[in-house]
Amino acid sequence: MPRSNFITLLTDFGTQDVYVGVMKGVIAQICPTAQVIDLTHALPPQDVAAARFHLMNAYPYFPEGTIHVAVVDPGVGSTRRAIALQLSGGVLVAPDNGLVSGVLAQYPDTIQVGVELTNPDYWRSPTPSATFHGRDIFAPVAAHLAAGVSLEALGTPLSISSLVPLPLPPYETQGLGSDQTLKGCIQAIDHFGNGVTTIPAQTLQGQSWVMEIEGQRIPMGHTYGDRPPGDPLMLVGSHGWVEVAVNQGHAASQLGLRVGSPVTLRPTGSSQRR
Amino acid sequence: MPRSNFITLLTDFGTQDVYVGVMKGVIAQICPTAQVIDLTHALPPQDVAAARFHLMNAYPYFPEGTIHVAVVDPGVGSTRRAIALQLSGGVLVAPDNGLVSGVLAQYPDTIQVGVELTNPDYWRSPTPSATFHGRDIFAPVAAHLAAGVSLEALGTPLSISSLVPLPLPPYETQGLGSDQTLKGCIQAIDHFGNGVTTIPAQTLQGQSWVMEIEGQRIPMGHTYGDRPPGDPLMLVGSHGWVEVAVNQGHAASQLGLRVGSPVTLRPTGSSQRR
Amino acid sequence: MPRSNFITLLTDFGTQDVYVGVMKGVIAQICPTAQVIDLTHALPPQDVAAARFHLMNAYPYFPEGTIHVAVVDPGVGSTRRAIALQLSGGVLVAPDNGLVSGVLAQYPDTIQVGVELTNPDYWRSPTPSATFHGRDIFAPVAAHLAAGVSLEALGTPLSISSLVPLPLPPYETQGLGSDQTLKGCIQAIDHFGNGVTTIPAQTLQGQSWVMEIEGQRIPMGHTYGDRPPGDPLMLVGSHGWVEVAVNQGHAASQLGLRVGSPVTLRPTGSSQRR
Repeated sequence: MPRSNFITLLTDFGTQDVYVGVMKGVIAQICPTAQVIDLTHALPPQDVAAARFHLMNAYPYFPEGTIHVAVVDPGVGSTRRAIALQLSGGVLVAPDNGLVSGVLAQYPDTIQVGVELTNPDYWRSPTPSATFHGRDIFAPVAAHLAAGVSLEALGTPLSISSLVPLPLPPYETQGLGSDQTLKGCIQAIDHFGNGVTTIPAQTLQGQSWVMEIEGQRIPMGHTYGDRPPGDPLMLVGSHGWVEVAVNQGHAASQLGLRVGSPVTLRPTGSSQRR
Repeated sequence: MPRSNFITLLTDFGTQDVYVGVMKGVIAQICPTAQVIDLTHALPPQDVAAARFHLMNAYPYFPEGTIHVAVVDPGVGSTRRAIALQLSGGVLVAPDNGLVSGVLAQYPDTIQVGVELTNPDYWRSPTPSATFHGRDIFAPVAAHLAAGVSLEALGTPLSISSLVPLPLPPYETQGLGSDQTLKGCIQAIDHFGNGVTTIPAQTLQGQSWVMEIEGQRIPMGHTYGDRPPGDPLMLVGSHGWVEVAVNQGHAASQLGLRVGSPVTLRPTGSSQRR
Repeated sequence: MPRSNFITLLTDFGTQDVYVGVMKGVIAQICPTAQVIDLTHALPPQDVAAARFHLMNAYPYFPEGTIHVAVVDPGVGSTRRAIALQLSGGVLVAPDNGLVSGVLAQYPDTIQVGVELTNPDYWRSPTPSATFHGRDIFAPVAAHLAAGVSLEALGTPLSISSLVPLPLPPYETQGLGSDQTLKGCIQAIDHFGNGVTTIPAQTLQGQSWVMEIEGQRIPMGHTYGDRPPGDPLMLVGSHGWVEVAVNQGHAASQLGLRVGSPVTLRPTGSSQRR
């Protein structure tokens, strides 16, 4: 894997305190040439599933070898493991709580090696704080990787099958042809209020569908402007999931969406069944 | 124009999702040496006028050749054009929806060349998504520019006069001498609650004025501390527009300001007319 | 002191406007190789004490020679001084309003030289705006320092004893042994709702304590997971202060904390006294 000096950060630390800045300072102390890119720090506190969603979506857009540090860590200071995984596309550094499972599910054949971070030589000090492993373990480890330390030096090998699972919310296909239905749910709501479903775009097979959600039937479009301002539509979102949006509006507020809202897709023209 | 490896980003994408991080990843893939600076990502969704205001105010403070990527794009995926403009002070990369019109109005004689972004060789892929041209067109184009691609290679020449206009909100001067009035409105409200008017500072001609706004008469000052804490004042703001502020307070809340609130300035000592 | 090209920014400017971006543009114009790291820009407007707290906590985690620009500046444009201080660990550039006093109190023997920023050769222009010294004085001065200008060139020497004081909120120790009490208050509430007290961790002397705050008695723990989700605990926070937190919850909301809430610690097993 080519060496990269890019490190991304994904946390639930917010930006009102100096926690993220301090992680960057620690990285700068160890590897001054590292280039740090923020993914987001506004994840809901302790929401590992949201972290998994965003890391999975961001991962493929970075240079090979980029080191992704993701810290949503309700178990910090407990016995949960800290891990680093080398994939052909990049390196993941995170607590072992399911956070990386989205990337692993999307790119399953690219995992090369994994370690539990047990070597304190690459921590900020041999006795890290009990509450801020982002500063004391994850950031230093990422900086040492960027500086050229091998993943194997960071700790003891682990088996990928031993990682804590956190499966993607499921979707399912029922029936065939014009009776086919796709059932899933909203897995995330973005800044614009768009609802991202668990249904992958490729399941649409280039056909035309209608979405049933929160008691409404929503037509399919290609882009927001295909509908008048204020009108909802379903479309293929930029990350590759089926989404529901409102042109120049906020679908989540307007339609009453929440994470977990059930979604059903039917081929256009099929009769609605209850 | 000297080459610059600085790229600024101005969007309405927010920072709770990974949209901005993904743009930076795409830039890093194409031009790893580019230095990316965030202007803001907290613009109200689809508010092209707010984007025009902020881009216009930030533009002159960057090194020559800086590439400014501004994406507030309610027409994404429709027939609106994507454009790049080379000015003597920098390069603008944006949708053609009026976003760049503030910079062009302030620096009208500096435009050197403009193109419509029609060459998919410099996009992330020949078939961009229908909803995220920031990732698929604007960021890649900016990165290729930073890497040395010429603006002319990015697409077909366009005429500046063909750009979608979005005029600055007007102000007007009435009368002469002590009867003179300046009329404008609030064009933006900042983080501190200061109201930025459409009246340029130079129209004050070094004289003393009083502001009438939302039924109140507000004296002029030089800086916030010229008035007791909690008291309002009008002053020349740092971007060169007449502003209204409250010392250590929030003028918009206290005075009931909103974007569009009418403002009248009269020379100090002139009688108030209704 | 080794040269560093890292500059940190700590302000109350928010991120909805382009104020912070403009400071970075000005730095890029003067020292294109400087690496700028945001500490936070979400300080409550004009809250110098919050700025002092965060600067003090972030300072030790950056490379030697890092230039820390901190601008919370209710007195901008008045007669308050602008200053730069060289410490063995880094350089502070700020208004003289007490903002730097937390760092100075924590690292008192490291101060090497201080100047009042009186030399307009290193400002953006000889006549700075009256309201945005972050752009016109502090950012340019920091950029010139990063580019190699000596601190002494920036202005006239000042006496450290002349700096505006802003003492840390006090804590006190009463009694001895099992009758000992530590009294302090909440000095900050973080993004997670954790309350940071004014009591330094080392005063706990490795013993076990119980916290009394807002009418509740809260047991001590080592990390959040030592208590069930939703239960409060006191612990040593990552910055070295005694904190109060709720496992996977928001202590400030749940316990009714605010900055200034009084806190008493007693050794475990001691009788409660009123």
